[in-house]
Amino acid sequence: MTEFIPPGTRFVDLPSPFPTRRDGALQGARIAYETWGTLDADAGNALLIVTGLSPDAHAAANEADPSPGWWEAMIGPGKPIDTDRWFVVCVNTLGSCKGSTGPASINPSTGDLYRLDFPPLSIEDCADAAAHVVRALGIAQLACIVGNSMGGMVALAFLLRHPGLARNHINISGAARALPFSIAIRSLQREAIRLDPNWNNGRYDDSTYPESGMRMARKLGVITYRSALEWDGRFGRVRLDSDRQDGDPFGLEFEVESYLEAHARRFVRRFDPNCYLYLSRAMDWFDIGDCCDDPRTDTRSALASIRLDKALVIGVHTDILFPLQQQEEVAEGLSAGGVDARFLPLESPQGHDAFLVDIERFGPAVRSFLDALEPVRDGAARIRA
Amino acid sequence: MTEFIPPGTRFVDLPSPFPTRRDGALQGARIAYETWGTLDADAGNALLIVTGLSPDAHAAANEADPSPGWWEAMIGPGKPIDTDRWFVVCVNTLGSCKGSTGPASINPSTGDLYRLDFPPLSIEDCADAAAHVVRALGIAQLACIVGNSMGGMVALAFLLRHPGLARNHINISGAARALPFSIAIRSLQREAIRLDPNWNNGRYDDSTYPESGMRMARKLGVITYRSALEWDGRFGRVRLDSDRQDGDPFGLEFEVESYLEAHARRFVRRFDPNCYLYLSRAMDWFDIGDCCDDPRTDTRSALASIRLDKALVIGVHTDILFPLQQQEEVAEGLSAGGVDARFLPLESPQGHDAFLVDIERFGPAVRSFLDALEPVRDGAARIRA
Repeated sequence: MTEFIPPGTRFVDLPSPFPTRRDGALQGARIAYETWGTLDADAGNALLIVTGLSPDAHAAANEADPSPGWWEAMIGPGKPIDTDRWFVVCVNTLGSCKGSTGPASINPSTGDLYRLDFPPLSIEDCADAAAHVVRALGIAQLACIVGNSMGGMVALAFLLRHPGLARNHINISGAARALPFSIAIRSLQREAIRLDPNWNNGRYDDSTYPESGMRMARKLGVITYRSALEWDGRFGRVRLDSDRQDGDPFGLEFEVESYLEAHARRFVRRFDPNCYLYLSRAMDWFDIGDCCDDPRTDTRSALASIRLDKALVIGVHTDILFPLQQQEEVAEGLSAGGVDARFLPLESPQGHDAFLVDIERFGPAVRSFLDALEPVRDGAARIRA
Repeated sequence: MTEFIPPGTRFVDLPSPFPTRRDGALQGARIAYETWGTLDADAGNALLIVTGLSPDAHAAANEADPSPGWWEAMIGPGKPIDTDRWFVVCVNTLGSCKGSTGPASINPSTGDLYRLDFPPLSIEDCADAAAHVVRALGIAQLACIVGNSMGGMVALAFLLRHPGLARNHINISGAARALPFSIAIRSLQREAIRLDPNWNNGRYDDSTYPESGMRMARKLGVITYRSALEWDGRFGRVRLDSDRQDGDPFGLEFEVESYLEAHARRFVRRFDPNCYLYLSRAMDWFDIGDCCDDPRTDTRSALASIRLDKALVIGVHTDILFPLQQQEEVAEGLSAGGVDARFLPLESPQGHDAFLVDIERFGPAVRSFLDALEPVRDGAARIRA
């Protein structure tokens, strides 16, 4: 299975071995990243973005790759994450297939792809790998870590496991733990992939890619990433013109079906199925209360043990995958520990993925939080304890 | 494929040919039904129940079949639908595999199963077939028609196409039209079935039943029939004991996954996949505004043209498949036409399927509505025009 590495990607090697949380270790692993803006002489203006399950590190156009990125409207000179001020780093998560080491990478001990020999992957591993990139770039403390969706989980694990490595935090449509509705959805997506005969216990190649399973998984994803409210207005009951219907008695008929099909076609063969399985399960496993080795720690006390100056926790009313109560839980837990944390529910109709498209609401919220931050100075490199 | 006919089932033959709405016709078709209570001499105490996609006509225990039915807590002597007072009829929908004619029935013109030769099925056809049963039982006017879920659609089509055949109506978690979120879910369920190689364009048998596809479809159904809120309390992040995990690296691990698996196992091989496809698509096609032949009729004006005395329209806040706004739309549309219609939103945590389990809330609502109804008398056999 091919990896899909954007042309501007750079790499940081992880320590070898890189121990993983669930009794594994990786040899010769690396993390893909991209940057925007210029790092201050005292490395005080660094901002890290950790992503959802599928994005690569190409969050926006830059000199190395001028093509638009997945958060193009948010990152750049004068944009909400203003690269005239901030040195922005975006990492491709450990376990992905977009440049960072994952199940679709070569296992140096065998010379073959890892496939299911990749060690069990946890959100904590993704956080540890991102923290290594930060340190490798010479950054003693991030001014801010921004995490979206799964990245919201990664950011919380990062903050808990690497105290002092970030001073402020924006958590967008994230969660402190997986709850059963989202576990059920992801379990079904994994089942769709695993039921595809082409999956073959992870031993597919380009000519036997489990396309049906990935298409099902992606469609189910898109259904839960958006919202009924948005679709009522956007698609209603509009049907495809008859020349766009395929003649199959149970084939595509409504616009919403065609929309799902188009999304699925853009995704399959652009993401590795085994990587999808590993990252999906990592999300199910995540509970910030399990991040520490102390079994008495629960979700709330773990959140309350995170040290930060300020946090902005954003969610949207129409999110069914990471519902608003989960962002409220994050904000309340951080506040309970003394963080100046603000919970900001937005009225976006677009559901979980609103942060990608509703820049009108998310842009000003992110901009005003970042504008109010002080840069980290050498003398301020340790946060308030 | 076997049909699954409860032992107490009785049958009414439909007129032959029975014309279907989308340019088809059925020969020698029949509808399965069961009854409870005793029909008055003037047939004034009749109540019809039309069901969701999958139930059979065995809604509750009766003399012919003392096993518990799918709405056992709601129907019986002294229960909310009190069979000491009402003569209750429940029909298995046209297109099902539980006794009524459907794609799993014998096509008399070939002697083989209909399979995909069954004519395109619409909610209006289901309504027309139910109306025929009512008349065949000697009932000139139902005191009430009760429709749940898909049955809420069937009931509205029944009322519009057979004016005067029912005097009052309870619509539970129903809708006047399919909207894109539910269309997307059903489209994906159908795709799961159609992608199963065993489906084989509808030409499976017991030894090649498309079990994987049906399991996926059912799991997705159950996810959308219940609610995240219920599951947070019921399952949380509880894991299966290690001896209940199957050792598969991506196998069942959380209680919620085991729950879905158990639901799926109870469903597959108990429902015919082709019947599922036909009924699922019939729901997508449904818009009460299309029930009339006048293309100028929209959803609201169609609802406002329905003549009834009283209606009770119940929905629940946590329903993501038939969201509460859809029940509000039904109640408002009926009211606009002069019906004494009450919209009753309930706080049930169980989502779309709450009517099956939250008898504590649904029971009193149904009981008080029915208790206040006058029986239909001969002289009152036509509703207010």
